[in-house]
Amino acid sequence: MSATVFNRKDRASVDTLRLFSVDMVERAQSGHPGLPLGAAPMAYVLWTRFLRHDPKGPDWPNRDRFVLSPGHGSALLYSFLHLAGYAITLDDLKNFRQWDSLATGHPERGGTPGVEATTGPLGHGLAMCVGLAMAERTMAAIFNQPSFEIFNHFTYAIVSDGDLMEGVTSEASSLAGTQALGKLICLYDDNQVTIEGGTDLAFSEDTRARYLAYGWHVSVVSDGENLEAISLALEKARAESERPSLIMCRTKLGAGSPKEGQSRAHGEPLGAQALEATRAFYGYAGKPPFFLDERVGRNFKERGAAYESERTAWEERLIEYEKKYPELAKELHRRLEGRLPIGWEDKLKVSFDKNKPLATRSASQVVVSALAPLATEILGGSADLGPSNKTELKDLGSLSPLNPRGRNVHYGVREQAMGAIMNGLALHGGFIPFGGTFLVFVDFLRPAVRLSSLMNLKVIYVLTHDSVGVGEDGPTHQPIEQLASLRIIPNLMVFRPADAYETIAAWRAALSRTGPSALILSRQDLPILDPLLYPSLVEGALKGGYVLSPAPGGEAQGLIVASGSEVSLALETQKVLSPRRKVSVVSLPSWELFCEQSQAYRESVLPLNLTRRLGLEAGLSFGWERWLGPRGAMISVEQFGRSAPASKIFDYFGFTVENAVLKMEELFEGE
Amino acid sequence: MSATVFNRKDRASVDTLRLFSVDMVERAQSGHPGLPLGAAPMAYVLWTRFLRHDPKGPDWPNRDRFVLSPGHGSALLYSFLHLAGYAITLDDLKNFRQWDSLATGHPERGGTPGVEATTGPLGHGLAMCVGLAMAERTMAAIFNQPSFEIFNHFTYAIVSDGDLMEGVTSEASSLAGTQALGKLICLYDDNQVTIEGGTDLAFSEDTRARYLAYGWHVSVVSDGENLEAISLALEKARAESERPSLIMCRTKLGAGSPKEGQSRAHGEPLGAQALEATRAFYGYAGKPPFFLDERVGRNFKERGAAYESERTAWEERLIEYEKKYPELAKELHRRLEGRLPIGWEDKLKVSFDKNKPLATRSASQVVVSALAPLATEILGGSADLGPSNKTELKDLGSLSPLNPRGRNVHYGVREQAMGAIMNGLALHGGFIPFGGTFLVFVDFLRPAVRLSSLMNLKVIYVLTHDSVGVGEDGPTHQPIEQLASLRIIPNLMVFRPADAYETIAAWRAALSRTGPSALILSRQDLPILDPLLYPSLVEGALKGGYVLSPAPGGEAQGLIVASGSEVSLALETQKVLSPRRKVSVVSLPSWELFCEQSQAYRESVLPLNLTRRLGLEAGLSFGWERWLGPRGAMISVEQFGRSAPASKIFDYFGFTVENAVLKMEELFEGE
Repeated sequence: MSATVFNRKDRASVDTLRLFSVDMVERAQSGHPGLPLGAAPMAYVLWTRFLRHDPKGPDWPNRDRFVLSPGHGSALLYSFLHLAGYAITLDDLKNFRQWDSLATGHPERGGTPGVEATTGPLGHGLAMCVGLAMAERTMAAIFNQPSFEIFNHFTYAIVSDGDLMEGVTSEASSLAGTQALGKLICLYDDNQVTIEGGTDLAFSEDTRARYLAYGWHVSVVSDGENLEAISLALEKARAESERPSLIMCRTKLGAGSPKEGQSRAHGEPLGAQALEATRAFYGYAGKPPFFLDERVGRNFKERGAAYESERTAWEERLIEYEKKYPELAKELHRRLEGRLPIGWEDKLKVSFDKNKPLATRSASQVVVSALAPLATEILGGSADLGPSNKTELKDLGSLSPLNPRGRNVHYGVREQAMGAIMNGLALHGGFIPFGGTFLVFVDFLRPAVRLSSLMNLKVIYVLTHDSVGVGEDGPTHQPIEQLASLRIIPNLMVFRPADAYETIAAWRAALSRTGPSALILSRQDLPILDPLLYPSLVEGALKGGYVLSPAPGGEAQGLIVASGSEVSLALETQKVLSPRRKVSVVSLPSWELFCEQSQAYRESVLPLNLTRRLGLEAGLSFGWERWLGPRGAMISVEQFGRSAPASKIFDYFGFTVENAVLKMEELFEGE
Repeated sequence: MSATVFNRKDRASVDTLRLFSVDMVERAQSGHPGLPLGAAPMAYVLWTRFLRHDPKGPDWPNRDRFVLSPGHGSALLYSFLHLAGYAITLDDLKNFRQWDSLATGHPERGGTPGVEATTGPLGHGLAMCVGLAMAERTMAAIFNQPSFEIFNHFTYAIVSDGDLMEGVTSEASSLAGTQALGKLICLYDDNQVTIEGGTDLAFSEDTRARYLAYGWHVSVVSDGENLEAISLALEKARAESERPSLIMCRTKLGAGSPKEGQSRAHGEPLGAQALEATRAFYGYAGKPPFFLDERVGRNFKERGAAYESERTAWEERLIEYEKKYPELAKELHRRLEGRLPIGWEDKLKVSFDKNKPLATRSASQVVVSALAPLATEILGGSADLGPSNKTELKDLGSLSPLNPRGRNVHYGVREQAMGAIMNGLALHGGFIPFGGTFLVFVDFLRPAVRLSSLMNLKVIYVLTHDSVGVGEDGPTHQPIEQLASLRIIPNLMVFRPADAYETIAAWRAALSRTGPSALILSRQDLPILDPLLYPSLVEGALKGGYVLSPAPGGEAQGLIVASGSEVSLALETQKVLSPRRKVSVVSLPSWELFCEQSQAYRESVLPLNLTRRLGLEAGLSFGWERWLGPRGAMISVEQFGRSAPASKIFDYFGFTVENAVLKMEELFEGE
């Protein structure tokens, strides 16, 4: 292993990254100068000597992935992307954090070329990298062929003490060790300063020993300004085949500025005077903002173009590959482009025995298991609740270092990391990940769901045990507010099917859209609705809401609107009320899908003149006003649950035919 | 250190705990037999030889605390509590997991004597113990006097692999090391089996090394059936003065049953046959369920009564203490009983300069800082955002091993652990903890907020940077759905004050109630409302909603309803509309408080006949239908935010006087 040689041009380039960054922050009068000043050397070495990428082909599937986990250091990343030749202009930098600039406050995936992941919520950057590295290994295992290395890339991250304090990082790092992800390499910007003061205030652990305990390779670069040492550490990390690497670089927050080593260097502009002093420290006294030495500019451009030939060579090899392995190549393109396999919807046309009630969690397993052998991009898993969530893809194996093609990920009891890793898998391309936990524990992974939604990733959350119907486990395990808590997340599709057939629709809807979905499934068995009796069952559910059962014997005088396990109760109630009261039953499995329908359709389901509306849902009523109107009534759960058999709890909260009939009668009589 | 001696009676007692537990599960046909069978020995040693407690005085302030972090093993705990003499009957055990039994599915604090904390959501039990141990140390530092050890107790937990996988545990454990909580002792039920299979599937880390890295004392008991070895390990752990302890006991899930060591021993009844085999294994073949050998019964009763005299001696010493240190004793009683100091409300009568706009986060700091010197039970802190959240109690010091009386906790970038530790502090008694983070990051600690609410703990979440008003940091840092996400949690009081004076009301409301609160505070400066102009300002806000500014010049023809930073916009809009349109402005800082008011009051604020209602809130409209009615309009934020200066974003989402006037005019004209 020979040490990479760095010269004055490199040093000047590092300093240019620093000064560009602080100039951006100063001009915006907003942002974080501390990290760029301290972490520029490690970032420079990584980006210019190791990161195989191409500004002209930012979507090259075999590029190395880089994630800036402390997203607040975004100015550093944008400075590099601009200088390396990505489509982010000097004007973008000058408009850092301003409306419509590509240089947003925190890196946002999708908008800015070269940004692999949206970061800012600490911990998630590193955890997503675990998913990226996992994805690379599996794609390589599936698609690589003798002398065709379609996939062989590293996943790099810069991480901060904040990342390493967050629990999601601990979860993901432990799993990365178990999964032996040798191509995951994290550079730790170990500046020993946090917002409240020195890290000794709250972070005195031996992080090196902790990561060794996770099964990582750990090295220490005692001087974060030493480019050779950083380079050597990266080379050693790359030589690790089975251990992820943490390279701890001792740096100084706000290095070279008068605020060096102080908390206040973190998150506010240096100020004109301190900036000038910083500029002088780096030998650019009197130079204007965004000063670029010609040699430095050329250096970045050259370094940025270093792998262009490798990218084009890869593309040429791919043409060979397409000839030699046409089936594999088709599958590769299909998966990378996110196209489901032809005939996928047919696979979902499963039949269920109408005489055998089935929990929707079980129906979900039947449905996804029918599709998974064909749709190889589907990667299942659970936060150690597979047998309960019914997420196991039987006979398709567990993902492990020895079986990278395994289709079931054992995430362990780590809900948040599961969500973040699924985000990483989806970011990589080639996967539709789904992961299970109990609905009530979606609270643990909420930051991940939000990031799925922000990044518009096709990630499917399978959330079972969806109400007080959980029964004996009691209030800690009974979701009350969780359904509402998901409905409020922008861009998330929530689907709570009424039975096995609507569960087919749930999966179809989730697989058809580009963004994330949450499937809300029952623990308890539910009656199977008969498609002969209810012909609109699946197609209606795909619209989010539909008249499942029209009022018998004429025009409806009232409506029962229900979702999930309460739809069967609605149907029973309808029967008892008939023929005296003509009420129709609306199944409303997905508010988001229903809202996407035309107003005319929505009004055909919920006619304006029908104000006698009874809502049934074993959860909070919050938000239901929009469906029930000012005169509606609702049977819901407005408090935490109880420990007892499910039937007893449903009785207690009024989910009985008698009570539903009574409430409906009150709507008729109360006029 | 001499080894404790155990005899056949002890062994029989351990086995009785086991068989009671599996009998409970079998009878309920629901529950978890695996943990009780494996962990009974360690639990027995801890509970009968170390845990200083008294079934006749379960609230004894100086009792040792015990938390069963894997709450699903509840049958084991209840068996012991019953046998030791707590007010939980054999009928309760026989009605395990049935309606109204004290033996609920998971331990629930408040209902069942001897249960210190509600557990079930994994990780939180251990994390709450960090708060309990922190509380003990501080109470001792404040109240102990020479030869008066008012506080000197241990905090014990049993923890599972599931707990140790959860990120919240990592966060809390790292902080426990920094805080040098030597009286925290965790027994790890290291059975190497998870629900999905062996721990090697997902949990292959070196947990021992990891905990050493956190600064803990770690010992290993290689045979979890060896009572002497467990006892010796506990003695050694107790001798540690500065390091928390993890005792790793190798056990067997479902020990002694035919399912020993198998995942299916975890969470379902053994079944009659396997149960009989288990009974036989332990030498009780043919005995009936809940069989209790007389000597075993006596043993538990004696062990349960072991510390009664110590408890009564403590109470007698307390009488001495009251005489010798009357002021301290008064303060002690006050804090333990949760009574705020006399005159606390006067301390909150702060004045603000009406010409100096102030962010409500800053007003909050003024308010709580005015009270904190008097109300010594208030313990502040932040997840490393103190200077941003304005949560620092200046001049009151940082909590640390060297300064256990410090009033500011540096939680580090560990939101979830912060919430859990605050729950532990509140559970202990003697504290009103508050902790800060950005509102958007409340997603990270949601499981803790839910537990605060379930346990009805007075914990105050200070959530700042409350809208797109965050500005440049962009969508990862701009809360949209978080306000709604908190309003839906049962028993949580959410308060979003409009200005500095309403911030006084927010704190008064939070401090006056017994349950948890979330204060939602602005980053940006807001105009100060003049109490002379708006005399109902503070008292009105305490009702959750009130007419802040009646329609000028007569009866209102329309309403503007707003909260937080949008109230000032409402007032400006009112001015522009006047005198042509007579609209009043309703400030609605807390839905929960408003809902507690009489219907008459609520209708006086929102008269039924006033259907022209415009809502203004820089967050999701979800749930607002209840205030605006079917004809209302709303200016809200229905999508993720953007990175730009706040004013630009507010403009974009329509939070301008012009737009509000327009919307209100439409309500007038659209009739």
